[in-house]
Amino acid sequence: MEKALLDNLRHSCAHLLAAAVMELWPKSRPTLGPPIEDGFYYDFDFSAQGGPPPSPGFGRAGASGGNDTPTEKDFSRIEEKMRALLPAWTGFSHAIVSPDQARESFAGNPYKQELIDEIVMKSEPITLYTCGGFTDLCRGGHSERPNEELKHFKLLSVAGAYWRGSEKNKMLTRIYGTCFSTAVELEAHLTMLEEAKKRDHRKLGKELKLFTFSDYVGPGLPLWLPNGTVIIEELEKLARETERDAGYQQVRTPHIAREQMYQTSGHLPYYADSMFPPMVMKEEHGEEIYYLRAMNCPHHHQIYAADKRSYRDLPLRLAEYGTVYRYEKSGELFGLMRVRMLSMNDAHIYCTPEQFASEFKAVNEMYLRYFKLFGFNKYAMRFSTHDPKELGKKYINNAELWKKTEDMVRRVLTESGINYVEAPNEAAFYGPKIDVQVWSSIGREFTIATNQVDFSVPGRFGLTYTDTDATEKTPLVIHRAPLGTHERFIGFLIEHHAGAFPVWLSPVQVQLAPVAERHVAGANKLAEELEAAGIRAAVDDANETVGNKVRKAAAQKIPYIIVVGDKELGGEDLMIRIRGQEKPEKMGKPVFLDRVRKEIQNRSL
Amino acid sequence: MEKALLDNLRHSCAHLLAAAVMELWPKSRPTLGPPIEDGFYYDFDFSAQGGPPPSPGFGRAGASGGNDTPTEKDFSRIEEKMRALLPAWTGFSHAIVSPDQARESFAGNPYKQELIDEIVMKSEPITLYTCGGFTDLCRGGHSERPNEELKHFKLLSVAGAYWRGSEKNKMLTRIYGTCFSTAVELEAHLTMLEEAKKRDHRKLGKELKLFTFSDYVGPGLPLWLPNGTVIIEELEKLARETERDAGYQQVRTPHIAREQMYQTSGHLPYYADSMFPPMVMKEEHGEEIYYLRAMNCPHHHQIYAADKRSYRDLPLRLAEYGTVYRYEKSGELFGLMRVRMLSMNDAHIYCTPEQFASEFKAVNEMYLRYFKLFGFNKYAMRFSTHDPKELGKKYINNAELWKKTEDMVRRVLTESGINYVEAPNEAAFYGPKIDVQVWSSIGREFTIATNQVDFSVPGRFGLTYTDTDATEKTPLVIHRAPLGTHERFIGFLIEHHAGAFPVWLSPVQVQLAPVAERHVAGANKLAEELEAAGIRAAVDDANETVGNKVRKAAAQKIPYIIVVGDKELGGEDLMIRIRGQEKPEKMGKPVFLDRVRKEIQNRSL
Repeated sequence: MEKALLDNLRHSCAHLLAAAVMELWPKSRPTLGPPIEDGFYYDFDFSAQGGPPPSPGFGRAGASGGNDTPTEKDFSRIEEKMRALLPAWTGFSHAIVSPDQARESFAGNPYKQELIDEIVMKSEPITLYTCGGFTDLCRGGHSERPNEELKHFKLLSVAGAYWRGSEKNKMLTRIYGTCFSTAVELEAHLTMLEEAKKRDHRKLGKELKLFTFSDYVGPGLPLWLPNGTVIIEELEKLARETERDAGYQQVRTPHIAREQMYQTSGHLPYYADSMFPPMVMKEEHGEEIYYLRAMNCPHHHQIYAADKRSYRDLPLRLAEYGTVYRYEKSGELFGLMRVRMLSMNDAHIYCTPEQFASEFKAVNEMYLRYFKLFGFNKYAMRFSTHDPKELGKKYINNAELWKKTEDMVRRVLTESGINYVEAPNEAAFYGPKIDVQVWSSIGREFTIATNQVDFSVPGRFGLTYTDTDATEKTPLVIHRAPLGTHERFIGFLIEHHAGAFPVWLSPVQVQLAPVAERHVAGANKLAEELEAAGIRAAVDDANETVGNKVRKAAAQKIPYIIVVGDKELGGEDLMIRIRGQEKPEKMGKPVFLDRVRKEIQNRSL
Repeated sequence: MEKALLDNLRHSCAHLLAAAVMELWPKSRPTLGPPIEDGFYYDFDFSAQGGPPPSPGFGRAGASGGNDTPTEKDFSRIEEKMRALLPAWTGFSHAIVSPDQARESFAGNPYKQELIDEIVMKSEPITLYTCGGFTDLCRGGHSERPNEELKHFKLLSVAGAYWRGSEKNKMLTRIYGTCFSTAVELEAHLTMLEEAKKRDHRKLGKELKLFTFSDYVGPGLPLWLPNGTVIIEELEKLARETERDAGYQQVRTPHIAREQMYQTSGHLPYYADSMFPPMVMKEEHGEEIYYLRAMNCPHHHQIYAADKRSYRDLPLRLAEYGTVYRYEKSGELFGLMRVRMLSMNDAHIYCTPEQFASEFKAVNEMYLRYFKLFGFNKYAMRFSTHDPKELGKKYINNAELWKKTEDMVRRVLTESGINYVEAPNEAAFYGPKIDVQVWSSIGREFTIATNQVDFSVPGRFGLTYTDTDATEKTPLVIHRAPLGTHERFIGFLIEHHAGAFPVWLSPVQVQLAPVAERHVAGANKLAEELEAAGIRAAVDDANETVGNKVRKAAAQKIPYIIVVGDKELGGEDLMIRIRGQEKPEKMGKPVFLDRVRKEIQNRSL
């Protein structure tokens, strides 16, 4: 089903939910119920029912009687009621009413009154939509035959949500649901959600000891445990190798800078809300204001500016895994996906307009090589362009440069056969950009990487190069981050692989489980041999049964587990428990070593 | 000559300097003139002479007439006067005088008046020392026969210095000099100073394009250029390999934390002056205060706390090249040596008291291995211990633990045959510590590494492990940083090697200089071959003579330079210009590749 029709179906389902809730909780006050990305929700105020106020953020457990606030335990009852009402839902009718009529229809519901006041203020018509005897204030967009089409729905969760998203307002109860046009699609979606729950990066991050948070350090600031740090270091090694081969140079820069830097870059005052608050330092000569950086570019510009550059020195490609800090509201933080600390696979390419197309192409090709390496089969590039009408307002005023660059980008994307969509009037003020979306193995979408062109900021910092004709010109800059941030990328990888990382990324690649105390020394020796071959090995010398050790290692999703007993230490072939295979495989040590080493070297999936 | 006698000699020389200055600039006001590490200085106020006020920090150029402020151009005149006065300096006599007598002796000199007031306030005797007709307010400690002993002196520099070191006071003129008991020692010292100037890490850092500073970023915050970053990455690789072999685990943690963390650690409020100012964040629930971290330990403690630990899990060795930020007055910043950003080769070892001695020993051995690898022939460890009288005041109150740990440390140092001195009553409040001094190849001393024991802070964070008897105990923590900070360590290496780094640390290991345009492609191919063998190679394709290219590469102190012309591309042996050798050496390509590769692998000096 086409997206617009699916939205209509889900919107209708939100009405049906509200109708059912009103039957079961007659004193509840419905507020708003739109379709969303994967379903719909409806927000209610249940306070007149006399139940406890909802808690913020997440679903709540606990049964509820008929008269308080519903919980997930009430879902079957609500769904039953929805299905009971459905036969009468043969179609929506609508009426345009006067403000007074509207106010009377929703007497006692301050939320609807507020919405009506707003419509009146904007001098728009007030429309009421009715179906199966249930009337709601609504702009329209519904299914034409709900009774026939609205069969495959499911309520999903309950959460607290502030009225109109503002923490200054009352907390309402939001019921999420979804709805599809076929049973097969609904089933697939519910399976995906089930799988996503199992693959939740926060849950797996804890179980696999990848990262942690600390109240002392603060929300949104992950601390990477040894296992997570192994993954980080492998990713950085990959990036360093890839970038070295592509002619990049690594740099290191401080995490802070003076206020002046961000005034020149244009980030202050406009971006101040997304930055950490200033540090006011008392210097001998007066106060100086420092900021934690929210982006690496201005620091790299200082490195460009540290030397005189000629066209012969360009392209200059400066790379850094630079950590930046951005302010996000604490309520919006979410595991590794919405954080306040971002360690970016960042680089800035300074080039002449003549060099732009080939540099941009090389960057795209690097993206594609990475996606192949990581096994991302589904990806899309979203190409945000300018609107000529907004030149000099929303965008820097250089029509020719915009057109030329966007044409070049479009040509490169087409020539490279890259799957992309164009988003008009969504460019950055300083140039066009490409956001890269990838889909995890269970079909969830993540924006992971970015690639932007910058016409403007290099000029603000007075960056120049001497061109062939001996004149000083401003370089173009490509900002690119193909692996995005450690935080989001590893979060994505956890879900994508359900924590069963490819061998090269696995914190422990081979786990040795000695059968008894007397086999520990031999297991340690074997581990040393593996380590010497560049394989990360660990020995479980706990005072436990070997069965237990194998189970623990399997739960840690370690790719290879070897039980070490008399036979193995006596020189017999090893029995290798390979992740994902039911039966152990018998293998000589050299064959095994060679296999694992090759998998690591090739970064096999 | 013994240090105390040498100090007396230098102190006498400061008097002699003051006497000569008073003859030449009769209106100048002498203030204070102590012996220092490598010589002496004397501070004067020349403002009554009518000259321009001195500028802060560094020596000033420009000749001076007889009547203003002296500059380095006046040194020979002053030294001549000192030598002319010397025959009359047969010995110091001293007198204890009343406050009024003292005040009268130094009428018109507000600095001496201030010093007299202070002595009076402390009810100490006021002593005046006279030699050769020159009298100064002084506590004594002089040469017995200046006219015989005071022969080998030299004035070195002029600088501005605030009266009593406070920027609130007047800026005075400080004249530095030195003095030795023999001409040979003086000569050796002057040669060393000359050499130190050539090896100045700020000068070489610029010439070799290792690092830069930016006004936008701020003072004391180095930006590492690509060449410097190569050195950083080699050092980190070395540390990572060394630490992996020694059973450390790498972690990554944020650069900031909430105020509560530093209250619990005990750094706030006591250490607040050395920290960057707070960031006050407006959260939904109120204000939260964040700090840039000045040390990594509390973050590592959070990683320890992220899991339940038993004696079987210890020692736990957590390592991170963690960047910390410390506030230093802008006037005290100096190149890479005094900075505000410190990237530390940090690790924390959590262990039981039973494990302490062997862990501590292993840490010391790691230090010694590093020193050998880097060719630091002279080093010393300074072992700071507690004073039992200060227990419960300056030191945490656990007499037994202090004694036991210090005894263990002493035993380990002795057993390892390590050169150390003991510094009583200089321990940290939480445990004994060892500072490591190394001497550069020109004999200058740097404190580069540290090794501390911590009894206290782990308990403040409630860190525990389950011991063999099932009770919960607090682990000991060893803080160690054998390579210190990138900033200071690389600053030291620059001076130590005069910028001619060992091959493995050289940003470019082999420079190829094509003779003409037509040899560039061949040189590029050769560079690729070198790169594929793990050698960092660069091609100078500038439109210049090959002689010029060789000179530039030699100035960059690149270990190997190869001219690439018809012969070399025709398959003949390569003529290798080896750094430090006068004549090029003829070598087949495979022999050369093998040589360089081995030097890199072995990290040869």
